[in-house]
Amino acid sequence: MKGIAFLLVAVAAVAGFVANSAPASGHADGEVASIFGIKIPPGYRDWRLISVAHEGGNLNDLRALLGNDVAIQAYREGKLPFPDGTIIARLAWSYVPSEENNKVFGRAQSFVAGDATNLQFMVKDSKKYAATGGWGFAQFKNGKPADEALLKTCFPCHEPIKVRDLVFTHYAP
Amino acid sequence: MKGIAFLLVAVAAVAGFVANSAPASGHADGEVASIFGIKIPPGYRDWRLISVAHEGGNLNDLRALLGNDVAIQAYREGKLPFPDGTIIARLAWSYVPSEENNKVFGRAQSFVAGDATNLQFMVKDSKKYAATGGWGFAQFKNGKPADEALLKTCFPCHEPIKVRDLVFTHYAP
Repeated sequence: MKGIAFLLVAVAAVAGFVANSAPASGHADGEVASIFGIKIPPGYRDWRLISVAHEGGNLNDLRALLGNDVAIQAYREGKLPFPDGTIIARLAWSYVPSEENNKVFGRAQSFVAGDATNLQFMVKDSKKYAATGGWGFAQFKNGKPADEALLKTCFPCHEPIKVRDLVFTHYAP
Repeated sequence: MKGIAFLLVAVAAVAGFVANSAPASGHADGEVASIFGIKIPPGYRDWRLISVAHEGGNLNDLRALLGNDVAIQAYREGKLPFPDGTIIARLAWSYVPSEENNKVFGRAQSFVAGDATNLQFMVKDSKKYAATGGWGFAQFKNGKPADEALLKTCFPCHEPIKVRDLVFTHYAP
């Protein structure tokens, strides 16, 4: 019994450590995603903004696209295709009406970011990911990578955007 | 005539210079805004993301809130009131349906950032701006500051959000 009690304390301590060491982003560090072998890039929440969007329908989210330095430079210089080393992060949060804002404004017009939904990355490596247009794709929910079936849907959806190297999002000035 | 031709070439050259020297942000460097004396902070477009939102109604924009280092640190540490030196930037773009995205997705659900509308800043200086809760307010459109009458509307609108030091936007994890 002493052994089990010790184990429980140890497990609680480890759980506490994991909870406390969560990054400022609120997204836990990820396991390796299947197929493309992509982990959550450290520090992605500090990356610079590419643009924002609202996806309605079933997704119904507000999203922000952030880019690492390679991505931001390529965007600003209009460099296509994106160079190897480009990583684009797509953060998304549920699309929530803000009662607090609407009360101040006197009308129902304000929608803000609620809970994080999931996190996606596009990683450019023209050799490693040659079969999918040079891009690896990843999705994480609460730090857990999406399964292979879902990740297989990324490339076919991005493929039509050949004119911008499979990237949907334009840079917002 | 030679004089006029020279002048036109000179004007074109200057126009070209101005176009080429526009910052990566797409927003020209600003004149001083009235009342609060705030200029567009250099490099604000490189600041880190606080959150995103959609304002409907007459505004009908997608917006991103970015913070300088002082702002981001205060947000992440939950530090209130925000310390002097905090600057929060609010970028906004027209809320535009994306035909390109909708075509790929097979449904009308995608709204993206169109042209930039205007640019706002909140600057914390508890002494300088003591009369307006410690915050100075600025708005710029195409690099031009908003007039005094408009800037006088900022503080009364922000004032009800006392619980978060007059700042509407929550940090998005």
